[in-house]
Amino acid sequence: MPDEAFRRRAGATFRGVINDLKRNTEAAAADLGVPPEVITEIVAGERDLPAELLRRAVEVWPVNERDFLPVHDDAPDGVRICRAAESAATSRVFQRGGADYYEYRDTAMSRLSMFRPEWIKMLVPVSDGRPDNPAVQWNKGHFLYQFTYFVGEVNYYYEWEGRRYCVETTTGDSVAGLPYAPHSFTYREGGSGLILALTYGGRLLGDAHQELGALGADLAADYAAAGETAAATVLRERLDDTMTPVARLAAESGVPRERLDDLLDGKDVPGHEELVALARVLKVSVRDLLPVVGDERDGVCLVRGAEAPAWDWPGEDPAAYRVRGLAGTKICPDSRGLELAVVGRDPEAALLRTGLHQYCFVIGPDPVRLRWESGGTVREEVLEADDSLYVKPFVPHGFTQVEEGRSTVLALRIGGKVSGDTRREASALGAPALRRLVSDTSQWYDAAAGAR
Amino acid sequence: MPDEAFRRRAGATFRGVINDLKRNTEAAAADLGVPPEVITEIVAGERDLPAELLRRAVEVWPVNERDFLPVHDDAPDGVRICRAAESAATSRVFQRGGADYYEYRDTAMSRLSMFRPEWIKMLVPVSDGRPDNPAVQWNKGHFLYQFTYFVGEVNYYYEWEGRRYCVETTTGDSVAGLPYAPHSFTYREGGSGLILALTYGGRLLGDAHQELGALGADLAADYAAAGETAAATVLRERLDDTMTPVARLAAESGVPRERLDDLLDGKDVPGHEELVALARVLKVSVRDLLPVVGDERDGVCLVRGAEAPAWDWPGEDPAAYRVRGLAGTKICPDSRGLELAVVGRDPEAALLRTGLHQYCFVIGPDPVRLRWESGGTVREEVLEADDSLYVKPFVPHGFTQVEEGRSTVLALRIGGKVSGDTRREASALGAPALRRLVSDTSQWYDAAAGAR
Repeated sequence: MPDEAFRRRAGATFRGVINDLKRNTEAAAADLGVPPEVITEIVAGERDLPAELLRRAVEVWPVNERDFLPVHDDAPDGVRICRAAESAATSRVFQRGGADYYEYRDTAMSRLSMFRPEWIKMLVPVSDGRPDNPAVQWNKGHFLYQFTYFVGEVNYYYEWEGRRYCVETTTGDSVAGLPYAPHSFTYREGGSGLILALTYGGRLLGDAHQELGALGADLAADYAAAGETAAATVLRERLDDTMTPVARLAAESGVPRERLDDLLDGKDVPGHEELVALARVLKVSVRDLLPVVGDERDGVCLVRGAEAPAWDWPGEDPAAYRVRGLAGTKICPDSRGLELAVVGRDPEAALLRTGLHQYCFVIGPDPVRLRWESGGTVREEVLEADDSLYVKPFVPHGFTQVEEGRSTVLALRIGGKVSGDTRREASALGAPALRRLVSDTSQWYDAAAGAR
Repeated sequence: MPDEAFRRRAGATFRGVINDLKRNTEAAAADLGVPPEVITEIVAGERDLPAELLRRAVEVWPVNERDFLPVHDDAPDGVRICRAAESAATSRVFQRGGADYYEYRDTAMSRLSMFRPEWIKMLVPVSDGRPDNPAVQWNKGHFLYQFTYFVGEVNYYYEWEGRRYCVETTTGDSVAGLPYAPHSFTYREGGSGLILALTYGGRLLGDAHQELGALGADLAADYAAAGETAAATVLRERLDDTMTPVARLAAESGVPRERLDDLLDGKDVPGHEELVALARVLKVSVRDLLPVVGDERDGVCLVRGAEAPAWDWPGEDPAAYRVRGLAGTKICPDSRGLELAVVGRDPEAALLRTGLHQYCFVIGPDPVRLRWESGGTVREEVLEADDSLYVKPFVPHGFTQVEEGRSTVLALRIGGKVSGDTRREASALGAPALRRLVSDTSQWYDAAAGAR
């Protein structure tokens, strides 16, 4: 489905690849065995990159097929809506252990973001809360992180380090789980149960996954240093990466050698002054010496709806939303589950904006009005219960009440490929560089130009 | 060039994509209109993904072509060597302004890492150090970061914010430059000059670049917030991303509202205790509230060889290397330029290991012995001046003297796709998860299995 914009981005990407290889149009054409006009047309976005040319490029240059391939923009208006009826049309029942176990329905997804959000109905009832109930069919876990929002009488089962757990949940509870932890869901007899299983990829999907794959399992596993604390691991890595002997770090930073040995052994974590001194010698930011430590318990973070932190937004009267902060883990600092009770009627006051990618599901019961701005145009849609949507980063959007309606919207925000360190890098390089990055089709030098 | 291992990784990737979409083999086959055996064979790595099937997948699923495509491993032995003669064979002279300006030679590159290192000889002499010398031909700058190591009598020209500069350099000097800054090089009359122009991609290349491209220039530019300090920007982003009103943050953290307003206005940066309190309320690590601030001057970091920090490695006698820390910028905390005078003879004592990707160029004048371990095998090669190499992360390797030789090796290490936050995430998930990520070809559940 190469559309015109995709082809244009592919052209700019192609120019980027040959610029980086220090090939001008003629040199690139010679390497690939085609006339220069072919290259010119590809760069201009006037023709698709032929499969044969791609094959040849990967053969003669130190590049990969993926280096040439853009991402499709399937939300050109800023938002992509999936209506309840479209979701229902994707309904499929999967059996486990010979019996119908779940009904799955896809909800809003976009090629711009690794959300894989499913509406899942539990088809097997249980009459107890035992994790070893034989009716429970366990999966093997999956790499995607899972944020789950519970509706009805759902039993949630999860396994961590060989032990199995069951939690009885109710509407409004939520849980964040780590990759590869086996889990399952049933509903409690006499009730009914469904979940919004919002799986999503973290920073390790995409390029990172493929790089790890090419390095192979043994080298990939080395990225998870064993047997040290997270803080000690970060410091040890920096010493190895910069070839800095401990004795030199001690002498230059003023942090005593014995103290550094304790820090590297994980016996203590560095204090702020120490971090500043170490960062100065290692020529990094303090940020780069700090670890990330998860706050899960047995691999999950469970938040009961009744105990979730709640606040009004924007904070000044009148409120546009009554917000609840749902489950999350510090390993994914950009993943934010939010429950929004839509209480406002003024679209200006309800306007939200975030640098994260966002998925929303209208829990209802009543409809809500969605308003958003994209490319200078203001748009509106009324969304019914079970409608869902994807919102691009930075697109101003908001939900308001329709009439006297009462409605709740579930939102999950996640960091895209430009999050964390990468977002900091983008921020440091500045807007003109980012604009040029995504649109430049010109050669890095002008052969004809005299001195300017 | 799909080899068997590539096909196997493509199979595992394909399974990952359909698992994430909650499609079993049969459902995926039905979506794509092929018999289930086709899917089974692709997943098993027994057949290439047909172009037509890929096209269809991108049409019917919310995915991109690049989601299916692995990275090629062109360094299966851990190291990829490019001999001086191979480099010389890539020699090409580019004209600027009608005259021969540079001779380019490729040096070692790998599909595993975005190094684009060129040996470049200056062909135009100058007799002054004026940045406006009409013989100087400026380029337009490029997106890759550039680490440059100078050999001989080189004049380095760079432009920053509309102003042009000239620096007279000598062997051993180095400079780190930011993307898109126009620059040029000449040599000083009576001498000669060449540079090792080690360009490389930062975290914004690859997935991030393509995501920004699909979002379009306007939304992409929003990632570079203007008019605030870096520390204020990070905090502001967190408030937006978590829908946290300033009043709530003040009330919950104990940091007074007025103080928060000052921090958000960039009038001050938060102290350590404040950061800890804010991170607790925002449910992130302190790391996630810290900015990255560059330490360039007029867009570059220049380090004179004579003034570069120098130390012995490993620090205890006898030394294996006399190390100099070369130019770098804090915007790229994983980019490390190191000059290694090889002074040891014991390969065990010279063994290096880093989680970064590494490029090396043998400056000489004498040969060095390279020894490395890969897959349980120890290998050795004697490298001559102008040979270059790529070393995979975590591959133990080292350089030692050959006879009484005297030789210097230039090393540039850069973070791959698993660096910074992503490396922290990999570390938190642990080795078994990383191993499974790169090799798992199984469905996320076993339909036939009874309860286990």
